[in-house]
Amino acid sequence: MAVAQTVIEYVLDRLCDIGITDIFGVPGDFAFPINDAIVTHPRVNWIGCCNELNAAYAADGYARVRGVGAVSTTYGVGELGAISAIAGSYAENVPVFHLTGMPNLATQAHRSVVHHTLGNGEFDVFRRMADAVVGASAIMTPANAVFETERLIGEALYHRRPVYMAFPTDVVDQPVLGPGEPLPMPTSNPATLRAAADAVAGAIAAASTAVALPGLVVDRLGLREDARAFIEAAALPFATMFADKSVLDETHPNFIGMYDGKLMDEPARAYIESADLVLSLGTLPSDFNTGAFTATLDPLRTVGIDVHRTTVGATVYQNVEMGELLGELARRAYGERELPDIPLPTLGPVTGAGDDPITAATLYPRWANFLREDDVIIAETGTASMGLAFTTLPRGARYHNQTLWGAIGWATPAAFGAAIADRRRRLVLITGEGSHQLTAQEISQFGRQGLTPIIFVLNNNGYLIERLLCAEPGIEYNDLAQWNYAELPHALGCRDWYTPRVTTLGELDEALETAGTAERACYIEVVTGTYESPPLPKLLHDSMNTLYRT
Amino acid sequence: MAVAQTVIEYVLDRLCDIGITDIFGVPGDFAFPINDAIVTHPRVNWIGCCNELNAAYAADGYARVRGVGAVSTTYGVGELGAISAIAGSYAENVPVFHLTGMPNLATQAHRSVVHHTLGNGEFDVFRRMADAVVGASAIMTPANAVFETERLIGEALYHRRPVYMAFPTDVVDQPVLGPGEPLPMPTSNPATLRAAADAVAGAIAAASTAVALPGLVVDRLGLREDARAFIEAAALPFATMFADKSVLDETHPNFIGMYDGKLMDEPARAYIESADLVLSLGTLPSDFNTGAFTATLDPLRTVGIDVHRTTVGATVYQNVEMGELLGELARRAYGERELPDIPLPTLGPVTGAGDDPITAATLYPRWANFLREDDVIIAETGTASMGLAFTTLPRGARYHNQTLWGAIGWATPAAFGAAIADRRRRLVLITGEGSHQLTAQEISQFGRQGLTPIIFVLNNNGYLIERLLCAEPGIEYNDLAQWNYAELPHALGCRDWYTPRVTTLGELDEALETAGTAERACYIEVVTGTYESPPLPKLLHDSMNTLYRT
Repeated sequence: MAVAQTVIEYVLDRLCDIGITDIFGVPGDFAFPINDAIVTHPRVNWIGCCNELNAAYAADGYARVRGVGAVSTTYGVGELGAISAIAGSYAENVPVFHLTGMPNLATQAHRSVVHHTLGNGEFDVFRRMADAVVGASAIMTPANAVFETERLIGEALYHRRPVYMAFPTDVVDQPVLGPGEPLPMPTSNPATLRAAADAVAGAIAAASTAVALPGLVVDRLGLREDARAFIEAAALPFATMFADKSVLDETHPNFIGMYDGKLMDEPARAYIESADLVLSLGTLPSDFNTGAFTATLDPLRTVGIDVHRTTVGATVYQNVEMGELLGELARRAYGERELPDIPLPTLGPVTGAGDDPITAATLYPRWANFLREDDVIIAETGTASMGLAFTTLPRGARYHNQTLWGAIGWATPAAFGAAIADRRRRLVLITGEGSHQLTAQEISQFGRQGLTPIIFVLNNNGYLIERLLCAEPGIEYNDLAQWNYAELPHALGCRDWYTPRVTTLGELDEALETAGTAERACYIEVVTGTYESPPLPKLLHDSMNTLYRT
Repeated sequence: MAVAQTVIEYVLDRLCDIGITDIFGVPGDFAFPINDAIVTHPRVNWIGCCNELNAAYAADGYARVRGVGAVSTTYGVGELGAISAIAGSYAENVPVFHLTGMPNLATQAHRSVVHHTLGNGEFDVFRRMADAVVGASAIMTPANAVFETERLIGEALYHRRPVYMAFPTDVVDQPVLGPGEPLPMPTSNPATLRAAADAVAGAIAAASTAVALPGLVVDRLGLREDARAFIEAAALPFATMFADKSVLDETHPNFIGMYDGKLMDEPARAYIESADLVLSLGTLPSDFNTGAFTATLDPLRTVGIDVHRTTVGATVYQNVEMGELLGELARRAYGERELPDIPLPTLGPVTGAGDDPITAATLYPRWANFLREDDVIIAETGTASMGLAFTTLPRGARYHNQTLWGAIGWATPAAFGAAIADRRRRLVLITGEGSHQLTAQEISQFGRQGLTPIIFVLNNNGYLIERLLCAEPGIEYNDLAQWNYAELPHALGCRDWYTPRVTTLGELDEALETAGTAERACYIEVVTGTYESPPLPKLLHDSMNTLYRT
């Protein structure tokens, strides 16, 4: 007789089924049975991280590449350490499974005063806190394990949000009770789907100029090919907002650039805002997506194809799944449409050499040049990502940024997670040194895992984006401890990394050339003047009245 | 005419009044007006930290020394990064003021989709999360600022818990409306106080053997002298539980050792558990305070003097403040009482030398020997703190541990905060390398602030306490990235630190001698075998059935 599956075996098997083969985390006694099960599971790897925040960021980065990710923490101290990253995954539509341990049921029933609690005998307080920033949560029991696992997978995929699963230690290894099956994902109401497709296709036919704005959820839902097929069928030009950069390939002939309101890339803006029709595929009109709220799209000329509904003019079509609608729209016939001739954004030519200092004008074109096909680029919140975003990326390259949540510190561990998610692709991390300091110890995990990322640490002597947005740029809170970054990877146990500190264009060019062909990890500190900023942060500085609605 | 005080000026002035002259934090745009006010305040220093978790731990360490502390973060991303540390301060009765920025009222009213939010137009979600782990919270307005500031100060001091204050950016610099005054702290009901004192004094008189257990809240409440006066007046011997170590001076003639149930220090246990009367001054019978629940105190022979009430036998005296009761009890007359002759705990003599490896038996006596009068010792959760705790400390030395919350990573930033709180006392940090990795970057802030801590990083090749409590000690999740710790301080910008790596007793002795007279910071990696454990963790390993109630 086969041994019945245990609660944790069921959960891990199902997470494997949907694409998770690596779980990030920090172990802890109330999570030992979970930790044990991950280590011994034949298809799942335990990926230890330095702390829980970093582990959850790593799971987020992994999920951006794989579609789903998971993090495991212990009770209280562990799960709360991760909660800011989980909130970020919520904001950014990243489905991360948060598996956390809990004291056993006897301890809970006794209301015992045990470590990792508030000392008040309450054991559901952290689950309630998690509920604010996840799509769904459950405390597992043998009886509910199958149902709750399927429900949480369904919720995570339906909403593309993180979910929370807590396991009392004595529940983890009990056999699950009852059978279960994956929940089918909802499908559209056929009549509404057809009506929505008719309305969208009709709107396209009626528009002499139409343009698409694919949003990041297209990628989160695994619908990049579907969106591309629709855009090609309808011969639509497309642009992306900041958060959505590279959701469709930027070498596609229909790509016309980045749309960031009145702040950047004026040719794309002028075309989009004067178009007869704009098709938004799940975009979010956030502050940094709209150029500090300077984007002006007429709602009546905008079609909103959202994840579960579509809006055309004043009509909302509920129960229309984005994937099905895109499929239906790709099968429709459209009239001929000529693509506009709009110059793509560029960061300009590479200039300067030798002993010239590294300036924004000379750095960003070099970074743009350095990128190559199929790179996974993790760009930290701050001036660096705001500069690099306005290059046009090589074929297959993917640019990830945490535009809405915008937690500095995210990028370094997220890059680690992304590198684990796909070891074959080159991983390029671009971070400012201020952001890097929050989570820098995770560099050690790249080394431990034998990964070979390319990491650029932009050292501009403080939090530059903050200098540009606060009242007094030189105020002391924007200063940082001065680290010797070139020494850091070795101190953190990374062996044979290439770690130059570059202060001139000659040094930078040499470092880029070396990194471009390196088969080892590279960690390059790029030193610029304190106020060397690409255009967008300076324009945000000039737009604070709209950015902050003051 | 004098310029009216602004909201933030009022808050900062009042925090100064109660002893906070340094505020730890990470700046951010929704907190800029708070950050600006801290930097420009004549009596408050801005102490920048690498990340928010570390900043909140630093505020916790500061408050353990000063009585109160404060941390400043930005909205959402920042405050949630700190929330695990705030929960720890709650569990450990540490009053930390958490000042966080919020988007301005117009942004909130518009339900704008701005960065650092979940993108759903909700702005009170993070305050609601904080409410689970603070004593009280408020969102400040010009009208409520005075009242809420006084209320929150009152709550923080009454409960000795953290409190949360959120400031919309456009509220911070508005003039406060209306006058205010500090809330008086509640005083006891005089009749009940007298009755409680009579009952306690009567119980002492009736007991042929009586012993006191002063708890950490005695220190948090600033009542160390009051407790000492009472204990001396009544000629009571006293012991402490783990969390309470050194709450009263361990060189006091009445000190009889540590009480940790049946696991450690048998002479103290035998005396306490057979005494006619045990007086608990706010102790908490938690797992690690009771030797994995092996302590057995008869409730009817235990007097509980808690912060706001006292229990004698079956009678509860409500509305009796600990400070007033201790004062009253110190003024009473008691019969003669001979102190028991109980040997104090010791870690034994220093043995071994030269090329001998460093073992638990040879390391801990050396650490104990190294400590000197008035040291502030921050001991991280794990085997190191469990070993060192059973030495008897020199006069004036204070031992801090996060026994209840037990978040690994706490100690390094908490030590930084403690060092800021009192720059004149020597700060000794004892941490395992696994815990250190969570928050190690905060080392850089010691260097930046010109502090000269003595830091011991115990490198035993993984999470030793976890190896002892999990099913399979060698399982991979207890392994760590191998760092080159000796290189870390310099990589993090610390200049002229003494950073040896010691693997033999000869090297250890040399390092201890150098550190003992150093006028510079010392960061000493102490390498032992993987399973070198002091007694308590091994005994916990043997007591897992009571520890975990399995």
